[in-house]
Amino acid sequence: MQRLPRLSALTPEDSGWGFFLCTYKELRAGRSGSEFLFLTLQDSTAQTVAKLLTDAERYKKEFEAGEFVRVEGRGSLYNGQIQLVLSNIRRVNPDQDRQQGFREDECVLSAPRPIDEMWEELKAHVAGVKRDHIRILLSRVLTDHESQLRTWPAAQTIHHAYRGGFLEHITKMAEVGEFVANAYQADWDLVLAGIVLHDIGKLQELAYDAGAGSYTRDGNLVGHIALGIIMVREATSGISGFPDDLRAQIEHVVASHHGLREYGSPVEPKTIEAFIVASVDDLDAKLNQVKRAIAEDPSGEEFTAWNKRLGRVLYKGPR
Amino acid sequence: MQRLPRLSALTPEDSGWGFFLCTYKELRAGRSGSEFLFLTLQDSTAQTVAKLLTDAERYKKEFEAGEFVRVEGRGSLYNGQIQLVLSNIRRVNPDQDRQQGFREDECVLSAPRPIDEMWEELKAHVAGVKRDHIRILLSRVLTDHESQLRTWPAAQTIHHAYRGGFLEHITKMAEVGEFVANAYQADWDLVLAGIVLHDIGKLQELAYDAGAGSYTRDGNLVGHIALGIIMVREATSGISGFPDDLRAQIEHVVASHHGLREYGSPVEPKTIEAFIVASVDDLDAKLNQVKRAIAEDPSGEEFTAWNKRLGRVLYKGPR
Amino acid sequence: MQRLPRLSALTPEDSGWGFFLCTYKELRAGRSGSEFLFLTLQDSTAQTVAKLLTDAERYKKEFEAGEFVRVEGRGSLYNGQIQLVLSNIRRVNPDQDRQQGFREDECVLSAPRPIDEMWEELKAHVAGVKRDHIRILLSRVLTDHESQLRTWPAAQTIHHAYRGGFLEHITKMAEVGEFVANAYQADWDLVLAGIVLHDIGKLQELAYDAGAGSYTRDGNLVGHIALGIIMVREATSGISGFPDDLRAQIEHVVASHHGLREYGSPVEPKTIEAFIVASVDDLDAKLNQVKRAIAEDPSGEEFTAWNKRLGRVLYKGPR
Amino acid sequence: MQRLPRLSALTPEDSGWGFFLCTYKELRAGRSGSEFLFLTLQDSTAQTVAKLLTDAERYKKEFEAGEFVRVEGRGSLYNGQIQLVLSNIRRVNPDQDRQQGFREDECVLSAPRPIDEMWEELKAHVAGVKRDHIRILLSRVLTDHESQLRTWPAAQTIHHAYRGGFLEHITKMAEVGEFVANAYQADWDLVLAGIVLHDIGKLQELAYDAGAGSYTRDGNLVGHIALGIIMVREATSGISGFPDDLRAQIEHVVASHHGLREYGSPVEPKTIEAFIVASVDDLDAKLNQVKRAIAEDPSGEEFTAWNKRLGRVLYKGPR
Amino acid sequence: MQRLPRLSALTPEDSGWGFFLCTYKELRAGRSGSEFLFLTLQDSTAQTVAKLLTDAERYKKEFEAGEFVRVEGRGSLYNGQIQLVLSNIRRVNPDQDRQQGFREDECVLSAPRPIDEMWEELKAHVAGVKRDHIRILLSRVLTDHESQLRTWPAAQTIHHAYRGGFLEHITKMAEVGEFVANAYQADWDLVLAGIVLHDIGKLQELAYDAGAGSYTRDGNLVGHIALGIIMVREATSGISGFPDDLRAQIEHVVASHHGLREYGSPVEPKTIEAFIVASVDDLDAKLNQVKRAIAEDPSGEEFTAWNKRLGRVLYKGPR
Amino acid sequence: MQRLPRLSALTPEDSGWGFFLCTYKELRAGRSGSEFLFLTLQDSTAQTVAKLLTDAERYKKEFEAGEFVRVEGRGSLYNGQIQLVLSNIRRVNPDQDRQQGFREDECVLSAPRPIDEMWEELKAHVAGVKRDHIRILLSRVLTDHESQLRTWPAAQTIHHAYRGGFLEHITKMAEVGEFVANAYQADWDLVLAGIVLHDIGKLQELAYDAGAGSYTRDGNLVGHIALGIIMVREATSGISGFPDDLRAQIEHVVASHHGLREYGSPVEPKTIEAFIVASVDDLDAKLNQVKRAIAEDPSGEEFTAWNKRLGRVLYKGPR
Repeated sequence: MQRLPRLSALTPEDSGWGFFLCTYKELRAGRSGSEFLFLTLQDSTAQTVAKLLTDAERYKKEFEAGEFVRVEGRGSLYNGQIQLVLSNIRRVNPDQDRQQGFREDECVLSAPRPIDEMWEELKAHVAGVKRDHIRILLSRVLTDHESQLRTWPAAQTIHHAYRGGFLEHITKMAEVGEFVANAYQADWDLVLAGIVLHDIGKLQELAYDAGAGSYTRDGNLVGHIALGIIMVREATSGISGFPDDLRAQIEHVVASHHGLREYGSPVEPKTIEAFIVASVDDLDAKLNQVKRAIAEDPSGEEFTAWNKRLGRVLYKGPR
Repeated sequence: MQRLPRLSALTPEDSGWGFFLCTYKELRAGRSGSEFLFLTLQDSTAQTVAKLLTDAERYKKEFEAGEFVRVEGRGSLYNGQIQLVLSNIRRVNPDQDRQQGFREDECVLSAPRPIDEMWEELKAHVAGVKRDHIRILLSRVLTDHESQLRTWPAAQTIHHAYRGGFLEHITKMAEVGEFVANAYQADWDLVLAGIVLHDIGKLQELAYDAGAGSYTRDGNLVGHIALGIIMVREATSGISGFPDDLRAQIEHVVASHHGLREYGSPVEPKTIEAFIVASVDDLDAKLNQVKRAIAEDPSGEEFTAWNKRLGRVLYKGPR
Repeated sequence: MQRLPRLSALTPEDSGWGFFLCTYKELRAGRSGSEFLFLTLQDSTAQTVAKLLTDAERYKKEFEAGEFVRVEGRGSLYNGQIQLVLSNIRRVNPDQDRQQGFREDECVLSAPRPIDEMWEELKAHVAGVKRDHIRILLSRVLTDHESQLRTWPAAQTIHHAYRGGFLEHITKMAEVGEFVANAYQADWDLVLAGIVLHDIGKLQELAYDAGAGSYTRDGNLVGHIALGIIMVREATSGISGFPDDLRAQIEHVVASHHGLREYGSPVEPKTIEAFIVASVDDLDAKLNQVKRAIAEDPSGEEFTAWNKRLGRVLYKGPR
Repeated sequence: MQRLPRLSALTPEDSGWGFFLCTYKELRAGRSGSEFLFLTLQDSTAQTVAKLLTDAERYKKEFEAGEFVRVEGRGSLYNGQIQLVLSNIRRVNPDQDRQQGFREDECVLSAPRPIDEMWEELKAHVAGVKRDHIRILLSRVLTDHESQLRTWPAAQTIHHAYRGGFLEHITKMAEVGEFVANAYQADWDLVLAGIVLHDIGKLQELAYDAGAGSYTRDGNLVGHIALGIIMVREATSGISGFPDDLRAQIEHVVASHHGLREYGSPVEPKTIEAFIVASVDDLDAKLNQVKRAIAEDPSGEEFTAWNKRLGRVLYKGPR
Repeated sequence: MQRLPRLSALTPEDSGWGFFLCTYKELRAGRSGSEFLFLTLQDSTAQTVAKLLTDAERYKKEFEAGEFVRVEGRGSLYNGQIQLVLSNIRRVNPDQDRQQGFREDECVLSAPRPIDEMWEELKAHVAGVKRDHIRILLSRVLTDHESQLRTWPAAQTIHHAYRGGFLEHITKMAEVGEFVANAYQADWDLVLAGIVLHDIGKLQELAYDAGAGSYTRDGNLVGHIALGIIMVREATSGISGFPDDLRAQIEHVVASHHGLREYGSPVEPKTIEAFIVASVDDLDAKLNQVKRAIAEDPSGEEFTAWNKRLGRVLYKGPR
Repeated sequence: MQRLPRLSALTPEDSGWGFFLCTYKELRAGRSGSEFLFLTLQDSTAQTVAKLLTDAERYKKEFEAGEFVRVEGRGSLYNGQIQLVLSNIRRVNPDQDRQQGFREDECVLSAPRPIDEMWEELKAHVAGVKRDHIRILLSRVLTDHESQLRTWPAAQTIHHAYRGGFLEHITKMAEVGEFVANAYQADWDLVLAGIVLHDIGKLQELAYDAGAGSYTRDGNLVGHIALGIIMVREATSGISGFPDDLRAQIEHVVASHHGLREYGSPVEPKTIEAFIVASVDDLDAKLNQVKRAIAEDPSGEEFTAWNKRLGRVLYKGPR
């Protein structure tokens, strides 16, 4: 039996074994009365549904959601989506399976760019900030939240929903935002602060563990926008002489970055920098979704299948 | 010349002199080329437009917006609204005019209930809170912001937009909210906390001075909802052992009290207490508008004139 | 074999026998070609899906939707929802089964408060009406529709959708509405009339039978708001000297009680009493949904699962 | 001095005298302190604003709104709209002015078709109804409300807002609706009933007097849709053996004729006949507005000025 | 074994054999691990889901989507919808099966009226156009696209989604539109041009083959409204001396025929003819949906099941 | 008498003479019965309202809208907006006034960057296009429409509404779009084509003359989006071998560049390049409005007055 390909390359023709992270596990009762296991598995490249249809009773004790697993199975199409049909599953035994090539990193859905590279890029951006107060603010945020900022996803499901997604999102925004800020004679220090901090509340909104994000109590009750504003307020309060108008402008970018009240921003952009951050954020989130949807569409057609979240099909290019 | 009646009782038949607060002053060029003064005057009962059509050049130096004034003039209907046409205006000379009956209090648009009475009522509510942490929190808020809480309006223009309006709004909400909370076995401590704190950010959102409210920098850039959450966070942080779930629930009521995201709430109600506060707030604000609109409508008809903000006429009762 | 617990307490660990009302029955073809019975069962505490997977052909003749049944089976989780998997089902034989503890009342989903108690409360409210015409109107409505008013649900599915739900809804609204009306110096007679009559058209909109509500022809074609206005018009016409402005104001409360045209009200509130009834109705309906959703959520988490109708998760309290 | 042309033909070059109906009169204070009269005048062809700028004090006693007047003045453009600037106005003295050519009919804004002709047409439609119950119903409605049906406008301001407008609207709808009903094998009896009755509630919603419509108490509080349904219910109740499904379908057409809930229909079309009536009503109302707007636009351009109600300019044809 | 009835008449009691067009074919993995074929079959009267549950592996090679097939099976209800459960399926062998009564026409979902009859009617309309330029334009369009115009559906799924649906839609619109245009003194030549051309872009938007429509690249990327305008522009460019204002008015009808921008029209109706075409199009499309929904509803109830696209139930008539 | 400053620098303290373009002229009847001239004047830096209140009858013959004029007058505040009150006005006599410093260029509201410089930049972008077909397409468009592309505004009123505004808009979009396209590995050739062509239909939608834009017949009836698609289609048809998928993608960017159907795009973005162009277009249009609003706000406050089009105040910076 050969090793399964990466999930992003899985086809109905593939069968074999592989290591994955199991992020969801449910014992379902089938219509015929028998039970089966409904799972979500991921590796660094993609995520997929998996089903174990026989001997569910036996295998269900072999692992839990949140654990790395070793499976045997084959690819299968269901309603036009590729999934895995399993014949065997157990939790990984790290010591032993490492010899077979098991590596944690390769089993967690991840941003395509190396995290260290993105992190250095972000630090360089911060180091280049001209105004002392803003540079100190951003440096502290990077220091205080380094481990989360390096590994968090940018959202639970919608965009950049994988390890390092948060970092990928803000480094790409910073790359684009710097150019845009200069093009419009905006205050790049403020734009960068807005980019780094606009979603900072997500570090408290989401709990990210074992490849899966979930909402915290504060995430559900307060939301990442208000949480982020509080974090900015607390951080700036700790910096002696932080100018009040800068503090207010940074909080404004965080508060208004969804652009419209119906999208969850309690105030709408009123500064040039807030308009830029909202626009760059929206474009980066949308293009991440679009590119993922195009990459994951399995058909040989010119267009993807209907994308429910975007409410449209997407063009993949001429056949 | 006799004294003008209170503005709430002004008719086109009245003429005479009176003391008022001038909250707006503009020199306008009339179409005939001549200039006139366009003013807003108020006393404790109502607010009205006033115009001085002759000798504007001379009178405009006699006072500024924000000052108490002594005027002479008469009532006049314009597009169905009562206003004052002035023949004379000057700033009040307190020492001298006090003998003529000038009293600051009577010249500032105010809530109908005495402020001391409402304040005692609110303090009694807070004293009755069962859980120590919440009672301490609310007590401190009352202590720290007493002067603002006693005099602030509840909004710049929409509802309770007068001296003591903030206090009138929350005491009425507390009266109703206590009953509703008990009726639904909700947590009255939390509902009261939500009522006292839901608009607390307005103390930073608005600057209220000389009978007129205006938006502050933080008001425009951050907004009273996020400002209020920050104030709650800072206040609870200062209380040792404040339970985190209570803190989150109180912040949630503040965050969600507009009910819907398109009305400016970044999160929507998810607790019974949040639903109650949002409902009681909405009803009290609407009924304040409705009652004012009915009271201020000068016609003898069964219905008021079209109310633009509410988008309807209102029923005043059978003729 | 032991008796199954009340449905509100059912867990996947339970198995045994019980009496229920069957409100829905469908023979479905499973994917494997075999057929199974898909049912909805209820007792006074809750409602659940039930499936009979084997020998469906035989059992399907043993009962019909709308009948009380005796079943044997066990609890089972399906997509996170508890349901019953049956091994046996037959219609109740009242004479014989009564000895085993069968009672009709306990098999129909019902309001938690005793109906007689709520009915007396409502009659007391009506007896306290000051104006003769309104008291006579409400008394007649209670007399003419007593049996429906005591048993009808308040809606087909959304809120208070069980035996006595209509009565529970209006008595709770009356309890709250009386306080609110007094707090705002509103006309309590009119508010009470609005509360009793706002949904009176539902008695014609819905057919309620054997624990299930369905839409009548008039319900679909005319709707409960217009039906209710007609009922008010007919009732007031039968009362000599009923003042026309009172009649119009009561019809207005019925017509406007959904608050906005997009929610189905052909006119929007234009009287203080109409604003109050619309607000109290909305809050009571929402809190009923919220409390049910919290009570029925089976998980041990702080928040319920996603509630599709409310479009959010709900907070159940700290773990 | 010559006679002014009909208002539909008035230009800034015209001056002279004429007879009109005054439908609105207000004494306004100009910015220069002087007062002037702001009026609305109409004849059978059009309606216009008129102003009397000098000696307002004297002339204001010479007539009241609702009276026929004799004026002297000239056409004038104001913001691109033609209006009358008056130098003289007094109420008509019928005996004397009739010799000068005064005729009431020619001073009231009216439908272009003769009322008798439309009335005969409508009666013929009703006489052709096949089903006895519906024919009796419609005949009675025509008999009972003849005088209103012949003179009422179809709306206060939006479309067919002139004498005979109601009749013009329903006869045109009947002409078109008959063809459409046949084209789609719909029930023409029901469509005709819907056309005659869909706005019947307006006879109670509006008070029409002296060329001007205003809302009644029931119009504001209940609205013409519910009022119309009540009228249908009362009328069908008086006809022995009126089939219940026909009654419900007719009420449904009335209830749903605005097409969508946000346009004020408490239920939306669910029968073929209801779809047809809603469509034919909407088209006739829109085309009446469009044709009026095109006819009344004074410019020599290809397009009308911006039409606020329709939210667009309209094409008048190539120059 | 007898022949199955037409699909529009199929009941759960029927079993036998028949010829159909297969428009969709998918091999699905059932929960029990076995695979089955999920198909869509149609004849000239209706379309239905079909499933082959046993020996899917063998039968799947016997035919492809887009081919005519011979099946054996029986009617079955699933979630209240009739479908076919098959025991046998193979592609049609035209030579041999024609003797058994196979005819292509009878296996493709089709408009109820004969295509030749509708085509002659449309040609007669065009022949009657008064203005030469418009008549030449329409004649050329009919000549150039005859084969598509005769066979195309009017939409992929929503209305008239069958062979000849396009032609049925525009001939019915022409029948109604001619009357309406005359009733409102509109320009019938322009209205007819708008009717024939409003959806002409669908000939490029959709690919229609073997009884199924799908979106083309241009359909997805440009859309039928812009495609149609381009076709009009190209066709009028080829006609010497085509008046520019006529060209613009025809393009306007095409551009605005969805009525509102949110329905996809880049401009909204600004001519009488555009209002008429948009109205007649909307009514014909809606009534086609309504009539289909009523005809296809299998229950014996007064109302259809919930119609998701229309967002309501529909009245079928008294029982 | 000294020369007036540039309009962007005008204050109520200024008086003197100057040369301007008059873009609007209307004789208005004041309330006092006298007439005055209401004008719009512009120079290269700003546009303002001007009024001539005395001797309007005489001066109105001295010039027409669309002509350059020489005026005498003074700055004046009206409702917080600066305007000119004139005492004298006549049309420019070019020969004579040129000696006084009259220059056409300086009297037409214009983009701040020199047009030649922007034009060279745009040509360089086009010259750098890699794919021959797209480069040829864009080169031809630049050649064929050079004079319009150099002088047209980007919109009638909303953004870049001045001479050269179209060119300023697309060169800025190209500057930003190139960076964004590279950042997301998008097809820069296509993005550039989209930027150059997205508003190309405005050259037919608007007529721009004498400093003022107005809608053409095609602009009103067809709209710039469909007009632009037609222009692309015609241009690509003239280029031998233009690949069909490129043509469709370019048309798609034009069709979808408003982003949403309710903003007038008949299709919504389905390619990465379309998302980018829509985003860059929206941001550039908004920032142009924001910067203008900030620059033109005359007050000394931190925030501008309420901006009706953007629905908010804007932050100008700390005082």
